Amino acid sequence: MGDDRVRIGVMAPGSRIDTGIADRVRTFAMDRFSDRLVEIYFHPQCFLASGHFAGDDAVRAEAFLDIANDESFDSLWFARGGYGACRIAEALIPRLSDAARRKTYLGYSDAGSLLAGLYKAGLSSLAHGPMPVDITRDGGDGAVERALAYLIDCAPNVLEAGISADTPTAAFNMAVLSQILGTALEPDLTGHVLMLEEVSEHMYRIDRLMFHITGNPGIRKVAGIRLGRCASIPANEPDFGQTEEEVVRHWCERSGIPYLGRADIGHDADNKVVPFGRVPTS
Amino acid sequence: MGDDRVRIGVMAPGSRIDTGIADRVRTFAMDRFSDRLVEIYFHPQCFLASGHFAGDDAVRAEAFLDIANDESFDSLWFARGGYGACRIAEALIPRLSDAARRKTYLGYSDAGSLLAGLYKAGLSSLAHGPMPVDITRDGGDGAVERALAYLIDCAPNVLEAGISADTPTAAFNMAVLSQILGTALEPDLTGHVLMLEEVSEHMYRIDRLMFHITGNPGIRKVAGIRLGRCASIPANEPDFGQTEEEVVRHWCERSGIPYLGRADIGHDADNKVVPFGRVPTS
Repeated sequence: MGDDRVRIGVMAPGSRIDTGIADRVRTFAMDRFSDRLVEIYFHPQCFLASGHFAGDDAVRAEAFLDIANDESFDSLWFARGGYGACRIAEALIPRLSDAARRKTYLGYSDAGSLLAGLYKAGLSSLAHGPMPVDITRDGGDGAVERALAYLIDCAPNVLEAGISADTPTAAFNMAVLSQILGTALEPDLTGHVLMLEEVSEHMYRIDRLMFHITGNPGIRKVAGIRLGRCASIPANEPDFGQTEEEVVRHWCERSGIPYLGRADIGHDADNKVVPFGRVPTS
Repeated sequence: MGDDRVRIGVMAPGSRIDTGIADRVRTFAMDRFSDRLVEIYFHPQCFLASGHFAGDDAVRAEAFLDIANDESFDSLWFARGGYGACRIAEALIPRLSDAARRKTYLGYSDAGSLLAGLYKAGLSSLAHGPMPVDITRDGGDGAVERALAYLIDCAPNVLEAGISADTPTAAFNMAVLSQILGTALEPDLTGHVLMLEEVSEHMYRIDRLMFHITGNPGIRKVAGIRLGRCASIPANEPDFGQTEEEVVRHWCERSGIPYLGRADIGHDADNKVVPFGRVPTS
């Protein structure tokens, strides 16, 4: 309508959030972006509970479509990860409207399953980056501010610094990527710089995930792998004997995938935004 | 050479064991199979340590080949799981001799990566079942006796009771199978009854593993899935809301794979033997 109002819709594809998180994020956004007309709508589904999930599969899928297919929303922001996005992703794809295809989607961790499926379906404005739940972290305001600056202004300074307009990029949690390989959600990452991060996995599991990821013929077509942060690694018994970077270098070497160094992403307040595909040159 | 001596070689493809486990297993075998000429050889590699592993990849691979390619051994028994078999499996395959192809291999858990690769390579006497380390479990003597009865006499009474000569079978730990799908170790399980078990994984991870496994086009060609025991499941926060059987039924239904009920396998002393492929009719 030509106005500069920005409408952001939030839904939870996996686990639920408390209403307090929504309140904090809205208050923070009003304060920090007081000069802008920003509306953040938290779909009531975010606060539902059905066992592990923020509502059952059908409820979460409908909430996604309520926002994605609504022309009045500029973007869909995933409330948090947890687990559950892979359960609803495949069935959503055929139900996406043109409005859904024009929208920006932002999230990470478990939400990566949905980003992957949407990327495979040809959507062009998808990004790996902070979510509303990150406001509960130490320094989490910074993460949420970064996400909002991306959703409101597409601010280039919130992007991961190594992103180049020359090469397409994608970013995933290692376990989430591993668990979509070979499924209907696996995107074509040929030629992409693939950034990977992990949290709360033992070193032996990080090693096994890298075996699995780099052993995949599709993944062997990436331009290279960059390693984000691996946080809260539980103690390995006995000590694993290799760091996460040594492990990733090992599997890159074995599989013939270039190892391109570290990436500024992770399950933390410093997590930067990584758009899927090629960043438009401005 | 026509004698009825049985030689069993043991190596550790992932994590190490203590010499005490080898002593207990040998003593138990001498006692329980006192009427037979049974030699159980524990390769010295079993007791090595290299960070997480029982020796580095090269050392573990050589130990495997020392036994596999030695005509004098009737079988290779994996000492334990842990983690590491996937790191050595692919490179071993081209180095297998005819002697290796005539041998029986027995193990489970992480050793499933090797069983998978060997099965893909056309070896015909592979089985999922107890390992020497199981002697440390409550009632573990029974598990080790079952394994030995299989290795020494191919005793039919130690097999999982639902196995039919009409249908080929395979058995895996869910996480181990998930992590070889799409890699060079993935076997063709078309038409197989696939038995799956798990240990120490949260319910949300079991759900995600089943999403991944049943989402794989190769796995969708199995004759059906039977669910073994899922032991030591850590508490899910919040409660997951579904049992492991409900989860497996759900994914079977979604993927069109017949769910065929429970299987008598698991990370426990009751774990039965499941030969890969078709059990020969006697």
